[in-house]
Amino acid sequence: METSSSSMEEEAVNLRADGEEEHGHEPDPENNSLHEPLLRRSPTLTSNSMAMVGAKVSYIESLDYEINENDLFKHDWRSRSSVQVLQYVVLKWTLAFLVGLLTGVIASLINLAIENIAGLKMLLVAEYMTGFAYFTGANLGLTLVAAALCVQFAPTAAGPGIPEIKAYLNGVDTPNMFGVSTLIVKIIGSIAAVSAGLDLGKEGPLVHIGSCLAYLLGQGGSDKHKLKWRWLRYFKNDRDRRDLITCGASSGVCAAFRSPVGGVLFALEEIASWWRSALLWRTFFSTAVVVVVLRAFMEYCNSGRCGLFGRGGLILFDVSGVTVSYHAMDLLPVTVIGIIGGVLGGLYNHLLHKVLRIYSLINEKGRMAKLLLSLGVSLFTSVCLYSLPFLATCSPCDPSIDAACPTTGLTGNFKQFNCPDGYYNDLASLLHATNDDAVRNIFSTSTPTEFRPLSLLIFFALYCILGLFTFGIAVPSGLFLPIILMGSAYGRLLGLAMGSYTSIDQGLYAVLGAAALMAGSMRMTVSLCVIFLELTNNLSLLPITMLVLLISKTVGDGINPSIYDIILELKGLPFLDAKPEPWMRNLTVGELAAAKPSLVCLQGIEKVSRVVEVLKSTCHNGFPVVDQEVPSPVGMPLAVTELHGLVLRAHLITILKKKWFLTEKRRTQDWEVRERFTSVDLADKGDKIEELVLTEEEKEMYIDLHPFTNTTPYTVVETMSVAKAVVLFRQVALRHLLIVPKYQGAGISPVMGILTRQDLRAHNIINAFPHIAKRREEKGKSNES
Amino acid sequence: METSSSSMEEEAVNLRADGEEEHGHEPDPENNSLHEPLLRRSPTLTSNSMAMVGAKVSYIESLDYEINENDLFKHDWRSRSSVQVLQYVVLKWTLAFLVGLLTGVIASLINLAIENIAGLKMLLVAEYMTGFAYFTGANLGLTLVAAALCVQFAPTAAGPGIPEIKAYLNGVDTPNMFGVSTLIVKIIGSIAAVSAGLDLGKEGPLVHIGSCLAYLLGQGGSDKHKLKWRWLRYFKNDRDRRDLITCGASSGVCAAFRSPVGGVLFALEEIASWWRSALLWRTFFSTAVVVVVLRAFMEYCNSGRCGLFGRGGLILFDVSGVTVSYHAMDLLPVTVIGIIGGVLGGLYNHLLHKVLRIYSLINEKGRMAKLLLSLGVSLFTSVCLYSLPFLATCSPCDPSIDAACPTTGLTGNFKQFNCPDGYYNDLASLLHATNDDAVRNIFSTSTPTEFRPLSLLIFFALYCILGLFTFGIAVPSGLFLPIILMGSAYGRLLGLAMGSYTSIDQGLYAVLGAAALMAGSMRMTVSLCVIFLELTNNLSLLPITMLVLLISKTVGDGINPSIYDIILELKGLPFLDAKPEPWMRNLTVGELAAAKPSLVCLQGIEKVSRVVEVLKSTCHNGFPVVDQEVPSPVGMPLAVTELHGLVLRAHLITILKKKWFLTEKRRTQDWEVRERFTSVDLADKGDKIEELVLTEEEKEMYIDLHPFTNTTPYTVVETMSVAKAVVLFRQVALRHLLIVPKYQGAGISPVMGILTRQDLRAHNIINAFPHIAKRREEKGKSNES
Repeated sequence: METSSSSMEEEAVNLRADGEEEHGHEPDPENNSLHEPLLRRSPTLTSNSMAMVGAKVSYIESLDYEINENDLFKHDWRSRSSVQVLQYVVLKWTLAFLVGLLTGVIASLINLAIENIAGLKMLLVAEYMTGFAYFTGANLGLTLVAAALCVQFAPTAAGPGIPEIKAYLNGVDTPNMFGVSTLIVKIIGSIAAVSAGLDLGKEGPLVHIGSCLAYLLGQGGSDKHKLKWRWLRYFKNDRDRRDLITCGASSGVCAAFRSPVGGVLFALEEIASWWRSALLWRTFFSTAVVVVVLRAFMEYCNSGRCGLFGRGGLILFDVSGVTVSYHAMDLLPVTVIGIIGGVLGGLYNHLLHKVLRIYSLINEKGRMAKLLLSLGVSLFTSVCLYSLPFLATCSPCDPSIDAACPTTGLTGNFKQFNCPDGYYNDLASLLHATNDDAVRNIFSTSTPTEFRPLSLLIFFALYCILGLFTFGIAVPSGLFLPIILMGSAYGRLLGLAMGSYTSIDQGLYAVLGAAALMAGSMRMTVSLCVIFLELTNNLSLLPITMLVLLISKTVGDGINPSIYDIILELKGLPFLDAKPEPWMRNLTVGELAAAKPSLVCLQGIEKVSRVVEVLKSTCHNGFPVVDQEVPSPVGMPLAVTELHGLVLRAHLITILKKKWFLTEKRRTQDWEVRERFTSVDLADKGDKIEELVLTEEEKEMYIDLHPFTNTTPYTVVETMSVAKAVVLFRQVALRHLLIVPKYQGAGISPVMGILTRQDLRAHNIINAFPHIAKRREEKGKSNES
Repeated sequence: METSSSSMEEEAVNLRADGEEEHGHEPDPENNSLHEPLLRRSPTLTSNSMAMVGAKVSYIESLDYEINENDLFKHDWRSRSSVQVLQYVVLKWTLAFLVGLLTGVIASLINLAIENIAGLKMLLVAEYMTGFAYFTGANLGLTLVAAALCVQFAPTAAGPGIPEIKAYLNGVDTPNMFGVSTLIVKIIGSIAAVSAGLDLGKEGPLVHIGSCLAYLLGQGGSDKHKLKWRWLRYFKNDRDRRDLITCGASSGVCAAFRSPVGGVLFALEEIASWWRSALLWRTFFSTAVVVVVLRAFMEYCNSGRCGLFGRGGLILFDVSGVTVSYHAMDLLPVTVIGIIGGVLGGLYNHLLHKVLRIYSLINEKGRMAKLLLSLGVSLFTSVCLYSLPFLATCSPCDPSIDAACPTTGLTGNFKQFNCPDGYYNDLASLLHATNDDAVRNIFSTSTPTEFRPLSLLIFFALYCILGLFTFGIAVPSGLFLPIILMGSAYGRLLGLAMGSYTSIDQGLYAVLGAAALMAGSMRMTVSLCVIFLELTNNLSLLPITMLVLLISKTVGDGINPSIYDIILELKGLPFLDAKPEPWMRNLTVGELAAAKPSLVCLQGIEKVSRVVEVLKSTCHNGFPVVDQEVPSPVGMPLAVTELHGLVLRAHLITILKKKWFLTEKRRTQDWEVRERFTSVDLADKGDKIEELVLTEEEKEMYIDLHPFTNTTPYTVVETMSVAKAVVLFRQVALRHLLIVPKYQGAGISPVMGILTRQDLRAHNIINAFPHIAKRREEKGKSNES
């Protein structure tokens, strides 16, 4: 240990010398392939910007949350009048309002559609003798609609979308995630998939829908759908879009659980990477609007004007009427729930990871394979849901309980199914219902004898299997509801097992089990706590909920990362964690820069041909602008070089497209550039260099890059440790970070390198610096012994 | 506007030339003195690190939240074994647990003491004929205890302490805020002051108590009280102390309102400047412990073993039994409550600001003046509380209401006071009670005729006056309760005025009024919402609470800053806002550096006499270390200079104290420094350079600063705008920020300046750059016209 710092320097020196060799090192593809992400990573520190988006590998870009201070933007900003600033503020709040309003309306419509379609299905099944055929046929049809839409029109609409939103707010732009087609497919697909009785929820999709709405309202959509409204021009930047999407995600969570505070906290704790106090307030406003819309919708429907829409849909489970009393004695079962929740959650994450890998192999075989997979899962689900209740024995109705028993209708807690009058089938109560109704039934309180242990066990086992195999199919699917179903089953089972030892109602055990499994799999605490608070509408549950969540999160964290982190890793999305790895303190950014291909700089006034060549030969998105041989500022004899700043690829392409070229090599005046460019021109991105056609004559001309250069890029000195650079990069939300030398002197370049998101990811660094991985292993071993 | 950028450069150049003259400019002290902070500010950009702490002006320091990566710390960190890392993690959670446990216990004891002392007082007053003399005497005595303790032993214990905690977590260390004496005085003083019937709460003080406990547990106290426990050495840094204090503050809020989620959110929204997901979880754990302790305490007391401790103290107001129903029609009165809350809150902030200024003049006159002021306020309070109920007419008891009427005991809603049997005095119900009971009474639901409008008006007027004049006296006082009392009075008045128009209960109007006034004065949203949710224990109130809070915060923000910001500004605490001022984008850090006195650098191997001289002649806390004339790294003929990093004053003093001097000018080996220093030695601060005695011989020797230099300071290039530098400084939580030149060449210094918290504060910059203030005014005018 004494010499670790010096030995590291040696290794670093070796690395610089053997750079090429290091880059040639490939990890064994066969070795441990189940632990590798779906994409094979490049072993160098060059940016490998590919990730799984939807079901195919796409090129992904980073977002630019930094304020670009070039001449044009600065001028635009300075010339904004108070009226324009006011317009901006008013519009910001209007958009937050619209996001809430539309999310609320769409959530209401989705609930309405699901309740009516699923209700109609159930009624038909009950009416006809050939119940099973009807049931299976309807489910297959609905699944086909959802899957076909997803496969054909919007592969990115499959799944929950939350990991991609998380990545977007972290600074990773995944293509086609927030388009109009994605939104429409997500809405229709979600209705169909949930109505089909698949083991998935509408919660995750609602978060995605809220974010899509926010993105489209902020005019981030593709150009063809874009409104050219003048006011919206101030929102044409990644920062404002990020804020809007945060509002959208909060609104989505709020709409899913009718939990306004929980929605805000979910966005804060799980989804958003950066947070400002002002944002807290704005998201809160959006969720308040959602709640008002949902409330109005329910009041409207309560008068029976919504067809088969009954009690269902919105309030998942209200246990406000239950008096909760518990004492020190109850700490033991509560702890047990928490521990089991953590272990099961960890196990679920692990197994789901494996299933998703297998599914990705199936998905690679094409659209038909995806469709067949979805239909297969639907068929299996239908068979199980329909036939398993035959395994349960009929229970006599308990006359002391108020509720109707047995029931044959849509909802109701005591389904008659195959039982004689006066008896009910407890498993049918859980399986022959929409998922929302099933949750409500399993949470029902003051009915200690309602469910038999065997029925609960069958239910639990079934939903464990369905929960693992349904999530990855090509339909919009949320993770919340499957986990709630699993968790509530094991919670209620545990409550039954406790018998008279405990004074807590079995329904509350089911609630606690659901909370524990969610914390064990998703690893949230405060937001889950508030969501459950708002869901159950019972504050006296709060202290034990907190305890359960803390325990199961702790246990789960000891096993593996959260399910969202696993999915992010699996998809290869370059998510940047807030906390750097410990070993990053042993590496400097100078060493990172040395491991990268050599830096490409541009001069302040550059030849067109060189700009084109640089753009074509690299895929960098930012280039340092360095002026050579400028006169020394303090009147010294030697000429010096000057770091002018950083210019973005998108801006270079805009200049080339507008052909703003100079015949001689000279610096331009402010008015010259403002005659041709506005800040709005610079907000466009997405043009490709390959589409440009330039004459040979034009290529011999010059471009003055100064007015387009962001003169205030963030920089670090080469001696900065990677750990601290990561903190800077994450906290300030950067896309590019320049490395400046620690030396001052003639002949030294004022910029040594440039770091991007990919360079700062632990996995990439370890690939480029294998000795770090080796040392980590050694340290681990020496500590164990 | 076209030429603004070039004209600004000119001005900047002028400024550099006329630097001395600019610095000599003093603002007119007479002009608008009520708007100036209590301290006259220095007009230059030199750090003026003085602020009001307690009642006197003290020298304040910044905290160092940056990870210091010098050789010693790096070695210590690398040599930590897994066992030690585990120790650290276990201890971190143990400390969070202890913070929660102790805060819970102390909060319980405070409640117990207050209920018993205030109860005894009330009983005696009721028993004896000379009620008034007793009442006033007891109140004066209790006030005297609280004020004398504060004045004599811990001036920093006066007031709520929340602004100072907010400043601490922002990076400002205020002396004596978290000592043992402060803690003890705060506890006893708070009990005495609340029992004395003054218009103040125990909520703010509880937050301070929680933070004190956290600070002391993390061994941040003064050396004489410090445990020398080995395990705690890892917590001897500002970062871990910050986390602990955040836990403490959350626990305090939780203990005050029995609101675990609200406590976490309050810390997140209002108190803390930086937040990490891990911290969310840890504070949540602390507040969970607090809730468990409080619950256990209340269960113990419910069996009557706590003397006069009745229903009071902990649950402030539980309205869970009330069914809340409201419709679109109720939006109007709710909006009115919100608007009035915002206006009143803004007005309250404005007037309280003025009163605090006047009080500061009184406080300057010495201890006796402070004591007399406190006693005067107490006397006035007693007279009003005792005599005003005589103005109210007696109301007949309503037999349809269940509660006992009239009552003569401690609590109870319908006080008989001067009324005949069968009648009660409604004003006495509010005034002859502890503040907690008064809140409970005014919140009471389903009693629409209980309070007459005149009585409520008197109550409201009285508490407006008391709320303004009580806060600044020299006793521990919280702001929450006075605002709740005021707000509930106007809310209930409004409810009365609405009459039959509204379907909302008057008690709920009172709750909404309290929420509105809090949002109008303190400007929080989500945390207040959750606190009110947990206080009232009624989730159906949530949507209208949200609406009221949003409206009143918006209105209040239009009037003035939040009350905490006003107090921070008044005390001169250099709080750094997350959002830079817009005009900061027009100024570069290079211009800031030019406006500062010239930079003091040290060489890597420096003479002792120079180090001593530099430390004595400046008050800087960090010095850049620059090596001159090192051989060029790329083998070029010219020698270059090297920026090695930043060394802290505290570390320099430690070296001087240990007399680790070299006889010749040479770089030392790693083992040499590790023989004499451990990272623990560097954690000490507070030694003064003046206390050191060095011989002439020693002064001629050398120090190798390299092992003590933080080689990874954060840097910005001189062209960086101040706005972006502020973002970096705040987001990454810095104490020093180095400015590096944009030029590379021989003879240029590798570091151009150093920025600290004071340099980045808007007020200081405007003082040093008066043209910015002028331009802002002009812009404002041109926009208005």
